[in-house]
Amino acid sequence: MEKEMDLRLKKQMDFILEIDRMKEIYRQNYIADASRKENDAEHSWHLAVMCLILSEYANERVDVFKVMSMVLIHDLIEIYAGDTYAYDDEGNETKAKREAEAGEKLYAMLPRDQGDYLKNLWLEFDEGKTREALFANTLDKLQPLMLNGASGGRSWKEHEVCAERVIKRNEKTPLGSEALWEYAKKIIEENIACGNLR
Amino acid sequence: MEKEMDLRLKKQMDFILEIDRMKEIYRQNYIADASRKENDAEHSWHLAVMCLILSEYANERVDVFKVMSMVLIHDLIEIYAGDTYAYDDEGNETKAKREAEAGEKLYAMLPRDQGDYLKNLWLEFDEGKTREALFANTLDKLQPLMLNGASGGRSWKEHEVCAERVIKRNEKTPLGSEALWEYAKKIIEENIACGNLR
Repeated sequence: MEKEMDLRLKKQMDFILEIDRMKEIYRQNYIADASRKENDAEHSWHLAVMCLILSEYANERVDVFKVMSMVLIHDLIEIYAGDTYAYDDEGNETKAKREAEAGEKLYAMLPRDQGDYLKNLWLEFDEGKTREALFANTLDKLQPLMLNGASGGRSWKEHEVCAERVIKRNEKTPLGSEALWEYAKKIIEENIACGNLR
Repeated sequence: MEKEMDLRLKKQMDFILEIDRMKEIYRQNYIADASRKENDAEHSWHLAVMCLILSEYANERVDVFKVMSMVLIHDLIEIYAGDTYAYDDEGNETKAKREAEAGEKLYAMLPRDQGDYLKNLWLEFDEGKTREALFANTLDKLQPLMLNGASGGRSWKEHEVCAERVIKRNEKTPLGSEALWEYAKKIIEENIACGNLR
């Protein structure tokens, strides 16, 4: 019995150390002061705090703990699959396959019950159908918009992104929260007006 | 009514952008591969995922959502008070006053109900008496031990930290989880044995 417990704890601790790699997976957007790009660990933390503060704006009442858990782990598969920039067409073609394989590999590190639980939570997020997945997606789209706005649209300019693409990428954002989508639209409009977005 | 809503949302969004500064508050410990120091946003994210995976080891059944919320926000006051290294005696003398002022300033940014809620959550953590605060503290102490162990004790060596101090700093760690404290002790022993800790 003690041996089994030891093995369970060892798997959990190995997983916890493995996911430290999230701190070195850099996204395309910059942190608010535009000094450097943001990494996945920082992004996930920011979304979790946003969830704590903004859940009142979800279109339907959500299980806040579930949304928080979802956003904390939603990008873990990038440890093996890498970050695919939202506006990279080629990368997005192979993204689903790479991420599915990454999910299998990563969650197999944990004890079966926990691995299955977290993998299913990620799949639920990825499928984007439940109210929690929809609200998590809204936060995941709103946060880089806020940082792009704060950093003078640096990442948009670097990739010559146009407003139409940003709007298309946000087609599911209102499904999680109409109120936050209204706010997001204001950011987009302001950045078109000042020339940060083509 | 709409004006009031607008003001509420504006306060929340200003707060969300302000806490982006957590990504530039560097701690003394290194990330697992020892390539650079860890920042507060990364540390808080890591604790929240640890909470999701390790709550079964809490001495008493804990409200996991509450612990998770606590660890996500427990270091926010460092935006104004700075990070005080655990083994910096001088800094620790003024720490309480600096952090109390920082907490007042930071949480006043939010709508009153949310500001009070988060400030009280942080004070509960800081006081370290409830089962949730005790378990959050255990995670907060275990995580840098794990990273110090993984990174060859780099931060301990730089500050010439001795095992007695690490053990003293961990005197409340077993109160949150005896099982995780047993694991932490193994890390300490291994690092004494290989000379990473004096």
